[in-house]
Amino acid sequence: MPNDVVTLTPVILSGGSGTRLWPLSRPEMPKQFLPLTGEDTMLRLTLARTVGMSNAAPPIIIANWAHADLLEKQVPGDSPLILEPSARNTAPAIALAALAVEDPSAALLVMPSDHVIADLAAFHRAIQTALPLVAEGWLVTLGIAPSGPETGFGYIALGRELGDGAQQVDRFVEKPDRAKAEAMLAAGNHVWNAGIFLFRADAYLAALGQFQPDMLASATAAYRQGRRDGRFLYPDPESFAACPSDSIDYAVMEQSDRVGCVPVDMGWSDVGSWDVLHSIADKDEDGNAAGVHATLIAARNCLVRSDGPRISLIGVEDLIVVATEGEVMIVPRGQSQMVKKAAEAAAAR
Amino acid sequence: MPNDVVTLTPVILSGGSGTRLWPLSRPEMPKQFLPLTGEDTMLRLTLARTVGMSNAAPPIIIANWAHADLLEKQVPGDSPLILEPSARNTAPAIALAALAVEDPSAALLVMPSDHVIADLAAFHRAIQTALPLVAEGWLVTLGIAPSGPETGFGYIALGRELGDGAQQVDRFVEKPDRAKAEAMLAAGNHVWNAGIFLFRADAYLAALGQFQPDMLASATAAYRQGRRDGRFLYPDPESFAACPSDSIDYAVMEQSDRVGCVPVDMGWSDVGSWDVLHSIADKDEDGNAAGVHATLIAARNCLVRSDGPRISLIGVEDLIVVATEGEVMIVPRGQSQMVKKAAEAAAAR
Repeated sequence: MPNDVVTLTPVILSGGSGTRLWPLSRPEMPKQFLPLTGEDTMLRLTLARTVGMSNAAPPIIIANWAHADLLEKQVPGDSPLILEPSARNTAPAIALAALAVEDPSAALLVMPSDHVIADLAAFHRAIQTALPLVAEGWLVTLGIAPSGPETGFGYIALGRELGDGAQQVDRFVEKPDRAKAEAMLAAGNHVWNAGIFLFRADAYLAALGQFQPDMLASATAAYRQGRRDGRFLYPDPESFAACPSDSIDYAVMEQSDRVGCVPVDMGWSDVGSWDVLHSIADKDEDGNAAGVHATLIAARNCLVRSDGPRISLIGVEDLIVVATEGEVMIVPRGQSQMVKKAAEAAAAR
Repeated sequence: MPNDVVTLTPVILSGGSGTRLWPLSRPEMPKQFLPLTGEDTMLRLTLARTVGMSNAAPPIIIANWAHADLLEKQVPGDSPLILEPSARNTAPAIALAALAVEDPSAALLVMPSDHVIADLAAFHRAIQTALPLVAEGWLVTLGIAPSGPETGFGYIALGRELGDGAQQVDRFVEKPDRAKAEAMLAAGNHVWNAGIFLFRADAYLAALGQFQPDMLASATAAYRQGRRDGRFLYPDPESFAACPSDSIDYAVMEQSDRVGCVPVDMGWSDVGSWDVLHSIADKDEDGNAAGVHATLIAARNCLVRSDGPRISLIGVEDLIVVATEGEVMIVPRGQSQMVKKAAEAAAAR
């Protein structure tokens, strides 16, 4: 079955604005373009994850037009770069990519540009597991084995087996409250929806035509009337502005009855907050992840990120401190979901 | 009796290095030269406190030679400026001032340059109360009515009455532990030693000659062999280096049996830590003293001082944050005595 798939084309969604990691992440420099989790930027680490996949074509990157220069710098080679003239969420963005691949039977591997995957081998194995279903026209999502009753993710209830290592999706569950999350964890057979998808380009476009015909029409018009400039594609702004805005989850995955899931445990993290970044960072024996710009005196379980100012933490516990370009943000651990409010206040200044 | 006193010469001790208010206060810019408590610097607010005193001569300021430029800028008029070639604590510094006044019977009002006195009228009244004793040759100290069992100050046990509003000092008590402080508070008749002294210049020099003859000899030599440049006096470095180093409290006040005290309640604070600065600052309804460079989101009881970077506090309580010239210092309220360690770490970098 995998032999039916001519190519595997990674599609990297890089249009996020990343307000939850303010002030390092800003509208003009969202988190995927920053080296938040390692020595390279999150986008480049995402690109690196596609190296070594069999039959893989150069990745297609979809991003906000305002970040053209960042893409030019960070994406090597001849990867196509699609620059959205406006934000229309993931379903239309993926449609542009599906239209851009030459072979309509090509498999797309759709993934966000700002996740961490620690176990690369497990990731690649999950993709190989998915490909036979993809070849048959299934829409496939990777499901993350839950490590706790998280309330920040959507869940997937798994149904019947679809061959080795894959199951049909019974239903998608929106971000639950704590009790519901614990119930799903106790019940088993539920995984996190990580927003990583595999399907044939033609299967996605067919599903979009079935469930969101207006979206397909607008995206197709935007693509066809688009302007090319080297490896950049600029979809037509007017047509794309007319496109309904929705996520692939709502617009397509939750509508279709041919949706499969490959559960996988691959050290995944969405790096969705400073708290997550502290949890995945290398820490000293006192639980601090502080870096070279910090002086720690009786400090415990703190995260410090500074691109210049020296941060002296004295007798402080469970604090997140981020300093960059004239901004110093301080929030207790466990409360970093409030950072978004500070980002909004900063944008309004 | 006050008529026997020809002049009242304020002597302002400005040689402190102020490490407890790092990073705003630094060796090259100690706290007395900074506008920490109001719109003007602490030294200039101290100078302003001498305006309106009867028979007052221009203040004499004693400081570290390295701060000559700061003194030149901040001290107006023809006030004599004595620049110590090395730090020898307060007893030798005051000896230089006592030698510098023309009239040996002049009363000196010795005071630190980094205190806050909110009730100026009470301060001036206390001085008037002290002057008759001063004229008779007593060494007089102002005693602060304690507002709590502070362990950061020395105490004075008061003895018999010495006329209206003054008492003889029974003994000086070193910084006590909490239990001892509470016992003194409960006993009454104990005040804080604020380091503000009044005595005739000749009375001080006589006491110094009696109790610390080497100190008097070295200070006198340093003064006589000193170099004058306009209003600056540079004592001879070699003679002054030979002078024993000690505080006026140990070297003189605790030795003499002619020491009086005028207890006074004058809104005094030594501004000895960031905690003190938070306690005396104007605060908003959530207990924050934050200033124009702060963004507060669900923050309570915090102190923010920034001379540039924007500080965003999110969900934070009881935190002190100071940002200046590439340094950001963060310490919980109640622990600011540890700031000294960070200042030492910074000096060692």
